Amino acid sequence: MIKFDIHFPTQSSLKQKDDVFYMIKEEKQTKKSGYYNLPYQNKALQDSIDYIQTNKDILKDISHIVIIGIGGSSLGLKAIDTMLYHLPHRNHISLKFLEHTDPLKIQKSLKKIRIHKSLFIVISKSGMTIETTSLMKYCVWRYNLLESSLKNRLLIITDNDSPLSNWARQNQIYTINIDNNIGGRFSVLSATGIVPLKLLGYKVEEILEGARILQDSFFNRSEEHILEKAIFMAKNHNLLPMNILFSYSSSFCNFNLWYMQLWGESLGKLNKNDKNIGLTPISLIGSIDQHSFLQLILEGKKDKTITFLSINQEHYNELAIPNINIRGLETTNFVNGISFARLLAAQKLATMKVLQNDGVPLDSIQIDLLHEKNIGALVMYYELLTSAVGCIFEIDTYNQPAVERGKRILYNYV
Amino acid sequence: MIKFDIHFPTQSSLKQKDDVFYMIKEEKQTKKSGYYNLPYQNKALQDSIDYIQTNKDILKDISHIVIIGIGGSSLGLKAIDTMLYHLPHRNHISLKFLEHTDPLKIQKSLKKIRIHKSLFIVISKSGMTIETTSLMKYCVWRYNLLESSLKNRLLIITDNDSPLSNWARQNQIYTINIDNNIGGRFSVLSATGIVPLKLLGYKVEEILEGARILQDSFFNRSEEHILEKAIFMAKNHNLLPMNILFSYSSSFCNFNLWYMQLWGESLGKLNKNDKNIGLTPISLIGSIDQHSFLQLILEGKKDKTITFLSINQEHYNELAIPNINIRGLETTNFVNGISFARLLAAQKLATMKVLQNDGVPLDSIQIDLLHEKNIGALVMYYELLTSAVGCIFEIDTYNQPAVERGKRILYNYV
Repeated sequence: MIKFDIHFPTQSSLKQKDDVFYMIKEEKQTKKSGYYNLPYQNKALQDSIDYIQTNKDILKDISHIVIIGIGGSSLGLKAIDTMLYHLPHRNHISLKFLEHTDPLKIQKSLKKIRIHKSLFIVISKSGMTIETTSLMKYCVWRYNLLESSLKNRLLIITDNDSPLSNWARQNQIYTINIDNNIGGRFSVLSATGIVPLKLLGYKVEEILEGARILQDSFFNRSEEHILEKAIFMAKNHNLLPMNILFSYSSSFCNFNLWYMQLWGESLGKLNKNDKNIGLTPISLIGSIDQHSFLQLILEGKKDKTITFLSINQEHYNELAIPNINIRGLETTNFVNGISFARLLAAQKLATMKVLQNDGVPLDSIQIDLLHEKNIGALVMYYELLTSAVGCIFEIDTYNQPAVERGKRILYNYV
Repeated sequence: MIKFDIHFPTQSSLKQKDDVFYMIKEEKQTKKSGYYNLPYQNKALQDSIDYIQTNKDILKDISHIVIIGIGGSSLGLKAIDTMLYHLPHRNHISLKFLEHTDPLKIQKSLKKIRIHKSLFIVISKSGMTIETTSLMKYCVWRYNLLESSLKNRLLIITDNDSPLSNWARQNQIYTINIDNNIGGRFSVLSATGIVPLKLLGYKVEEILEGARILQDSFFNRSEEHILEKAIFMAKNHNLLPMNILFSYSSSFCNFNLWYMQLWGESLGKLNKNDKNIGLTPISLIGSIDQHSFLQLILEGKKDKTITFLSINQEHYNELAIPNINIRGLETTNFVNGISFARLLAAQKLATMKVLQNDGVPLDSIQIDLLHEKNIGALVMYYELLTSAVGCIFEIDTYNQPAVERGKRILYNYV
């Protein structure tokens, strides 16, 4: 279960909400983006099962999975694994990401890789991303992955008919395809995320189920807060150009990065009047960043909305602050005997109170338990919210035309 | 060596630069903040040497150092260790941070801690930070740290005469003091950073030397770019309220967080006319975040300045992209045979070019080699830059009054 609360005065009429709702409904019906349908398909799940069935010999003895992919091909998977890593059924496979062409980072990531205990998964929609192809070439060379006995250490996840897909099939490398109309940053519920998550032992059916329930509820008009929040943020984009996701658990650190891409890359666009429009996402972790960023929020310019994301502390109460009295530090004794989770929850509430008193527009998302179903719902919530703002902005939420500019001139600088 | 370049039209007269310069000079002379003098003192270095001398028996067999500290007490240390971790003289001690009251994170951080192989360093200026005292109590309880034979597993770094300092001394716990007039976020060159860095094997004298050389050069008026950049950013704070630090190496990931605190908490203030003022820091890592945030910078609102931080690729050329031709992916062959570092450098240059063409105000910082001296200089550069903007804003750069508000009402929410 997830509890969504809005703490700012919503400014949306029924008519406005209807308008946005029907635009989203049309996007889904016309398949403007394929992400809407992912929770209702069992293709990714079936792809995982088929892959595992065919490769059970090598999979039974894997210690490392190396993901070669960047941006939308890695952020969603990393986000979900970090949120669910503590679950007892997460197996002991170590997940490494080769996303960066930073040589210091590559050496560190591959340090412990032994080829006969590893699986390399190359994830690229286009199959043309320069970081991904370069790192794939490096791994092919370093681990001799094209040798016939080692080809089963390689798995390719890419668009139907991408050049990478064609090459892989010609070379008898196991390949799983994703639909062309699912953008990278909206692809975590496709094979991009689902296949590696299944290999890590997660109950991926429940991730999809959680996403499906949330989406059904939205289309049944039972999640009107999504429309209200989107309308508020879009209306106030000039006065409040930044949205902070203030997440009160380190488990959310990579979810925050996934959100930054989703929000920034989807909404930063030229609108139909060729005007620059967008909302800037900022990622904070509480309580840590109360000690680095809160001062700016409170006394700096009031140009930010803040979303508080947290977990219900009641389920994470095992670890407590001992009843120790330190002479001179008696003022810290009021937390003695309570759980760390309760202290963290109190810090969130106190921070929210101070910000509310200051008139900062807030909303909150509280997750009951960090498990597959809730995480699926959280992902779907953010995707729908992003689509809603995109509809109001009258932009194409699903492309990223400007990113291509740098790629085109890269040739001149090598 | 570090190369600083400004790629926007500077708008500062000699008179304006003089004004800012003399304000900074006065801050240093009047000791408004003690950070200016840290590179000229050998107190922190001597404190390290004394501590190591007294405790060599336990230090010779340490596998883990656990830092209990948050915000300014941990960010600087973490930043420097991440930038220099690859150096051959960095010893094999594992550095863990207990900064967060997140129970899932605490359990993960302490998983491998064996008390007879570990040292706990509590770092807190005031000695009253609720996260730090709670986590200290927890470790005291869990590892029985107040037992006489185990007290030498604990080291306290705190302000002169803080309650924590008094308690520690009364209990015969080794304590190192720092000056009261050095704020947490400006304290990395004090014992806060220097003592743990020395324990990790770094050449801390060279960190201090690098900082000293940069500061000398600034006060000799040989680093005027600092004043020019500060004036540009302060003048344009309404039109350009955000500064992105776009760092092209994963080694900078924690430096970016240190910068976010330094910039955000120092400059987000009520000015002397009680007006909210500030500049919002944003942290990106290149090339990774070209695939998540670049679209927003290029087509979203033009409300950001960008600082590119990078390493001279010529020194990190070992790892190369192999000469492999993949059928259908021939368009990626132009990087075959070049080093990953060169590709990363080219990606930075291509991105800068696209942004420049779009009129986005840029500057760049290029570090020749990631070693102690350069990192000391980089830290001092950012501290001076922050002080300069603070002087122009006519604010108190060194306090954080608003953060106290949340602390005061925390009691009501526990």
